[in-house]
Amino acid sequence: MGFSFEVDKTAEGGGRRGRLRLAHGVVETPVFMPVGTAASVKAVPQSLLEEIGAGGKGAQIILANTYHLYLRPGHELVRRMGGVHRFMSWERPMLTDSGGFQVFSLSKLRKITPEGVEFRSHLDGSKHFFSPEHSMDVQIALGADIAMVFDECVETPATWERTRESMGLTHAWAQRSKDHFELHKHSVPWSQAVGDAFEGKTQSLFGIVQGGMYADLRKESAERLVEMDLPGYAIGGLAVGEPREVTREMIARTLEHLPKDKPRYVMGVGYPDEIEEYARMGVDMMDCVLPTRAGRHGLLFTSEGRLNIKKKEYAEDQGPIDASCGCMVCGRYTRAYLRHLFASGEPLSAVLNSVHNIAFYLDTMERVRGDLAGTGEAS
Amino acid sequence: MGFSFEVDKTAEGGGRRGRLRLAHGVVETPVFMPVGTAASVKAVPQSLLEEIGAGGKGAQIILANTYHLYLRPGHELVRRMGGVHRFMSWERPMLTDSGGFQVFSLSKLRKITPEGVEFRSHLDGSKHFFSPEHSMDVQIALGADIAMVFDECVETPATWERTRESMGLTHAWAQRSKDHFELHKHSVPWSQAVGDAFEGKTQSLFGIVQGGMYADLRKESAERLVEMDLPGYAIGGLAVGEPREVTREMIARTLEHLPKDKPRYVMGVGYPDEIEEYARMGVDMMDCVLPTRAGRHGLLFTSEGRLNIKKKEYAEDQGPIDASCGCMVCGRYTRAYLRHLFASGEPLSAVLNSVHNIAFYLDTMERVRGDLAGTGEAS
Repeated sequence: MGFSFEVDKTAEGGGRRGRLRLAHGVVETPVFMPVGTAASVKAVPQSLLEEIGAGGKGAQIILANTYHLYLRPGHELVRRMGGVHRFMSWERPMLTDSGGFQVFSLSKLRKITPEGVEFRSHLDGSKHFFSPEHSMDVQIALGADIAMVFDECVETPATWERTRESMGLTHAWAQRSKDHFELHKHSVPWSQAVGDAFEGKTQSLFGIVQGGMYADLRKESAERLVEMDLPGYAIGGLAVGEPREVTREMIARTLEHLPKDKPRYVMGVGYPDEIEEYARMGVDMMDCVLPTRAGRHGLLFTSEGRLNIKKKEYAEDQGPIDASCGCMVCGRYTRAYLRHLFASGEPLSAVLNSVHNIAFYLDTMERVRGDLAGTGEAS
Repeated sequence: MGFSFEVDKTAEGGGRRGRLRLAHGVVETPVFMPVGTAASVKAVPQSLLEEIGAGGKGAQIILANTYHLYLRPGHELVRRMGGVHRFMSWERPMLTDSGGFQVFSLSKLRKITPEGVEFRSHLDGSKHFFSPEHSMDVQIALGADIAMVFDECVETPATWERTRESMGLTHAWAQRSKDHFELHKHSVPWSQAVGDAFEGKTQSLFGIVQGGMYADLRKESAERLVEMDLPGYAIGGLAVGEPREVTREMIARTLEHLPKDKPRYVMGVGYPDEIEEYARMGVDMMDCVLPTRAGRHGLLFTSEGRLNIKKKEYAEDQGPIDASCGCMVCGRYTRAYLRHLFASGEPLSAVLNSVHNIAFYLDTMERVRGDLAGTGEAS
């Protein structure tokens, strides 16, 4: 299917320096994946995204959201446009989530049955139905390099009983996702003609471990998914409002039960110090809307902590956002100008703030990869 | 003052191929100047603005708005930041308008006396007073290469008598603008130390011909301003709702009375075919918010006319905005994707649409310059 994962070195704390080979290219891990909700990393032109961060290497892999693209412009339209890579002109690796998280967090009037979820669009109230099979069909039409099994996300907080029940549904849906994916994976919209770059390549389907905030359920969920022998495993249902120590604990207790030779992906985290911490614990992939969403709200990440650009104190500050940042925004613009753009509601504000924040996230992971490459033992 | 204007060739229709030398660089004319209202060409990063259009040459000169920057962040702040070029990190030529047009079109509760205009900010209702002297102080603090005299913009339609009265005020204000500018022009925020790039250079102050829709008043206004011997002349008070034939007629009737060896600037025009037409009539400079404003509303300019990207018919259109456009947007993105971005309210929509439209305007003028260079006689 054109997928492989290699670990070069594993540090004492569990962090691994590795490499994911996907249909659209190679991804050095651990990696942070910027989120392109509706096939656009908000406010950032693809040409800048390709050059962002240390050494001008750009983002290695980005996300797109199945729920959003299903509703608008529609997955069949994206398929006819050649898949999400061609549609948005991003030829590097991509990942789509399953739509599950958005169905549970954004849509209205959900009705969950063992078959799937009926919901109303947050855009126009229209009625839709997502099953594991339908999520696979949508994700295959989008054609990202990595697809995710369709899972139920339990509400927070939830009792052990409720969490275990939900987890059971997630496991059944994971198996159905896998079965349907295996049957239909060759209908991905890339050409797979003999001799072309995608010959013999398909998407890769990752599982999602659930189990809420209960270590025993996390263990059970990990074990059940590992039995399904998927090429990679995500840890879902975290960063949903629980204290950070709980997030860390759940990640640690789940990682113990995931195979060392497969990539591990924590979904929807986090602040820069969190992604660094989890990478050093052995997480290989993470994604989060935070760098772009915070950027649009004027919150900037720096080597000295967070900076709220709307503050009066920056009005005449001629320094860059972060003196030790090498990004194109810090190389050119002052805090005074960025504050002015934000205060004036200029659309350029979101562009520049997002570019800096993504660069900061990518640079953080570049630094962690450097550290991991220099320590530990070859695995 | 670091200013000169040369005309290489003049075509039969009056169009001239020339060159403006300004403190921050050389501008090939005729030229279109994108508008950076609040020290940002809306949604377009400066790095893209430097590369936009045919041959990757970028915008040669941009505008900033005195009224907007006076209110926010304040001209004295911009002065302390080194002037508007350094503030926004744009080292190429710039022009500021006088603030007059915005005072008359945006602000509330204006009270006009021979001394100046009292008005309330459109942002917070606070009370302000602009006189010719104050406009000069603000524009000198901003430090654009070209400043404009403070003028009154008469309402449209206006009677001959009312227009002539207003014109008289504009002439008195032009003289006062010039007198004040000459006294204070050396306090521009650029360094003018011996040996630096700006040694001996100051801003250049252009006059503004008014006279509404009356050819005799336009003639009188042009003659009065020419007597003041300013380095360049603008034609103001057009494109304010009058039919296009009237705009053209007023431009033609004014150009007759402006010196051939000085640059002529028509303010606030227009559609691509208009800027081409006026350039071929002998207008050397034009500015307009249209390429960026239209872009934000999904209206795109092409070699085959206007295109409204929100239309359903583009939903699956794999072609570029304009097959004969060489801009970075047409080189990369499909109409289908651009429609999706617009329909989804993605901030990238404004960025890409604005980049294309500005490129189209700059390319239009590049083509006209090429035509003018190849025709007519050396002047």
